[in-house]
Amino acid sequence: MDRKAKLRAIVQGSIFTGIIQFLILVSAVVFVIESDRERLEVDPYKTHFVVLDIIFLVLFSIEYILRVYIEPRKRDFVFSFYGIIDLLAILPSLFLVPGFRVLRILRFLRIFRIFKATRFILAVDRLGAALREIQRELLALVILSLMFVYLAACGIHFFERNAQPEAFGSILDSMWWSVVTLTTIGYGDVYPTTSGGKFFTALVAFVGVGLIAIPSGLLASALTQARVERKKSEDSEKENQEQED
Amino acid sequence: MDRKAKLRAIVQGSIFTGIIQFLILVSAVVFVIESDRERLEVDPYKTHFVVLDIIFLVLFSIEYILRVYIEPRKRDFVFSFYGIIDLLAILPSLFLVPGFRVLRILRFLRIFRIFKATRFILAVDRLGAALREIQRELLALVILSLMFVYLAACGIHFFERNAQPEAFGSILDSMWWSVVTLTTIGYGDVYPTTSGGKFFTALVAFVGVGLIAIPSGLLASALTQARVERKKSEDSEKENQEQED
Amino acid sequence: MDRKAKLRAIVQGSIFTGIIQFLILVSAVVFVIESDRERLEVDPYKTHFVVLDIIFLVLFSIEYILRVYIEPRKRDFVFSFYGIIDLLAILPSLFLVPGFRVLRILRFLRIFRIFKATRFILAVDRLGAALREIQRELLALVILSLMFVYLAACGIHFFERNAQPEAFGSILDSMWWSVVTLTTIGYGDVYPTTSGGKFFTALVAFVGVGLIAIPSGLLASALTQARVERKKSEDSEKENQEQED
Amino acid sequence: MDRKAKLRAIVQGSIFTGIIQFLILVSAVVFVIESDRERLEVDPYKTHFVVLDIIFLVLFSIEYILRVYIEPRKRDFVFSFYGIIDLLAILPSLFLVPGFRVLRILRFLRIFRIFKATRFILAVDRLGAALREIQRELLALVILSLMFVYLAACGIHFFERNAQPEAFGSILDSMWWSVVTLTTIGYGDVYPTTSGGKFFTALVAFVGVGLIAIPSGLLASALTQARVERKKSEDSEKENQEQED
Repeated sequence: MDRKAKLRAIVQGSIFTGIIQFLILVSAVVFVIESDRERLEVDPYKTHFVVLDIIFLVLFSIEYILRVYIEPRKRDFVFSFYGIIDLLAILPSLFLVPGFRVLRILRFLRIFRIFKATRFILAVDRLGAALREIQRELLALVILSLMFVYLAACGIHFFERNAQPEAFGSILDSMWWSVVTLTTIGYGDVYPTTSGGKFFTALVAFVGVGLIAIPSGLLASALTQARVERKKSEDSEKENQEQED
Repeated sequence: MDRKAKLRAIVQGSIFTGIIQFLILVSAVVFVIESDRERLEVDPYKTHFVVLDIIFLVLFSIEYILRVYIEPRKRDFVFSFYGIIDLLAILPSLFLVPGFRVLRILRFLRIFRIFKATRFILAVDRLGAALREIQRELLALVILSLMFVYLAACGIHFFERNAQPEAFGSILDSMWWSVVTLTTIGYGDVYPTTSGGKFFTALVAFVGVGLIAIPSGLLASALTQARVERKKSEDSEKENQEQED
Repeated sequence: MDRKAKLRAIVQGSIFTGIIQFLILVSAVVFVIESDRERLEVDPYKTHFVVLDIIFLVLFSIEYILRVYIEPRKRDFVFSFYGIIDLLAILPSLFLVPGFRVLRILRFLRIFRIFKATRFILAVDRLGAALREIQRELLALVILSLMFVYLAACGIHFFERNAQPEAFGSILDSMWWSVVTLTTIGYGDVYPTTSGGKFFTALVAFVGVGLIAIPSGLLASALTQARVERKKSEDSEKENQEQED
Repeated sequence: MDRKAKLRAIVQGSIFTGIIQFLILVSAVVFVIESDRERLEVDPYKTHFVVLDIIFLVLFSIEYILRVYIEPRKRDFVFSFYGIIDLLAILPSLFLVPGFRVLRILRFLRIFRIFKATRFILAVDRLGAALREIQRELLALVILSLMFVYLAACGIHFFERNAQPEAFGSILDSMWWSVVTLTTIGYGDVYPTTSGGKFFTALVAFVGVGLIAIPSGLLASALTQARVERKKSEDSEKENQEQED
């Protein structure tokens, strides 16, 4: 086994992966604390955070270079989902040009790599399989929901534009109300005040709230269905084995 | 094949339909942008939008006339769901009488025709079939929900009418609270302030929120059930074919 | 057939029942409009509504007396759910003592009788059967939810009582927050402002929101399960009949 | 049977357990009322509540000592879930040091013991079994939700930090918005005001709201699945018995 193959075994091994996963979590926590302290005018620990940032940058850069180095098809890796995430999380920190510094926020993307943790990769796969199973219905429901958001916005714009021109003066503004209402968030920053608008909201809310809740139910059912079938095939395998014995 | 049959083949073909679907989407986007710019006192691009509106009007009018022309049973088409939508979306723009102009907003109805896009007509059909499957339960739940909205409004009106006469002074006004509460939107424009009203809300909320969430769950279950049965019949068909081979 | 039996056949027949159902709906609509007009200082149509009220009172009183008269077991009817509802809806209007007048609002209870409409009595029965099917789990979930409301109130009272003594000063007051939060209504009249309270809310919200959504899902599943079994038994019945033929 | 065994039979019997369950409920009600009266400057019934508290303290202390006494493996009981709860509910009241008095609020933990009530221990067990059945998917969904909360907070912080520095100035603060939005509570204390923030919210809300609703659906499906299987096995047992007869 040559050196590159050995290195690949280490980098793709569970210990190295585990350490990186842990570092990603720690860097996320540091990121949160740092953003909290940025509001302080004078932060006595500022240099500590700068040093921590540099350490994380060096570690994740080395890891990125290692991953590219051990990869036989380098191009595929660099342009893969996780390859791009890694690059986006590292690159902006390397350039010291002030305009680029705002993009350092992209470091938060790194958290996506937690998905690859061996601990729940199976469960995430199941979620993915269930999503694929219902993809047609899901697509139709998403498009229906978008249409519903649009139609609700058109309607409320018609009813409320004169009473509240700053909130419902255009369909685009009314869409904000649509989203906040149909997801049942209801912040309370915008709501109808005319009788027509309230009646329209009542109509739209009952239908729309139901519409938007369907996908979760579908996914839950699909996951349950998959579990039941998995169990059945396990049971029949056991039976087959017992009959063979 | 005569000219009319040829024309019918073109108009009902996937290319023509695709172009119209695309134009509907574009006109919806233009509609949104236009409504956004209406608030500007002076819009330098106003003439552009007027021209775009006229172009869409001409295109959709031609399409409507074509559809009527190729249809053997013209009357059925004109009074069908999509026939009426098309007419409502075109007519108000043809009349230049100021009173009618407000109805030009009905152009947004056109988006309903996206339903007929070949891409997800199957999924929409499935949704429809699932809805038919649960129609009895759905009807009962809708009537129960309406009754619940009414009863909740009567109750809160009783508890809050003296404390907040402007929000709960009549059952009709209280119904607005009912809708906003039972859908869990909770804008925060109206809420009980008396102890009795709060206690009543607690009772009503737990039951009502559950009641209103049932239809989505029912529909999701029905869709899953249909998918499972579809799979089974596909599997048994395959088996039959294999046995025949 | 004696006169009483004839009368019973009429009163329990679908025409009489339909008329009463219709009258109940009309009286509910009148009730809503009347409560809306009560806020007017001078209502020119006030006498009209007084007359309508008297007409409804007379009609429903006659209907009540008829129902008692035709009933063989009068006592059972009077103390049944619908018997008590009917009485509560009529009695307060009969007494002209001012103190009793406030109870005239109980007329709204009459709407409950819509449940008995032949059109969706089957669907309501199915809902009832599904509820009985899941009653044990439902009871446990209701008690769990009540406990959760209590525990969440105790917790937020601990975190917020010093910061917001008027909203979270006692557990009873905090329970209002519990209800509004766990049902995800979120009016916005009370919300935590301390860091501890916000963190506690985050914990409580994710668990509690999920907990409270389970019963609807359970009921939806039970209804679907019942539908599937109904279908199966119908199919097997058909098969049996075909084999017999 | 020696005295200890007799005592054990009594303490673990249904009468003693029932009395304790009842006392726990009563003490919870007293706790709520007491916290409500604490706001009164002068409470004429204050001594009554102090006496009640002492009575409850004595009763529950005796019960705790009894339980420890009858337990063969004392250590296991003291460090078990219910053992710790009992201790936490009693201890702070025993110390009269003022600093400890604030911990007397831990008395509310006692309510957890209601879970052990014989009446719904079966249903709670079923809930537990269903939770274990879906534990893998649940874990993945919880971690996905936490990641989603974090990512949403990072995103909204980026869009809103300049417009609303006090609400979205740090990721930690933005997380409060994440929680309130993704659970659809939507108090209305924090919400985006920039176009970018609103658009981001729309994206995040539709996905996140669906994501967070999945676990309830999963649990409801698992409970239904368990019920169906329970029924089947009961039916097949009956059949077996009938065949034997």
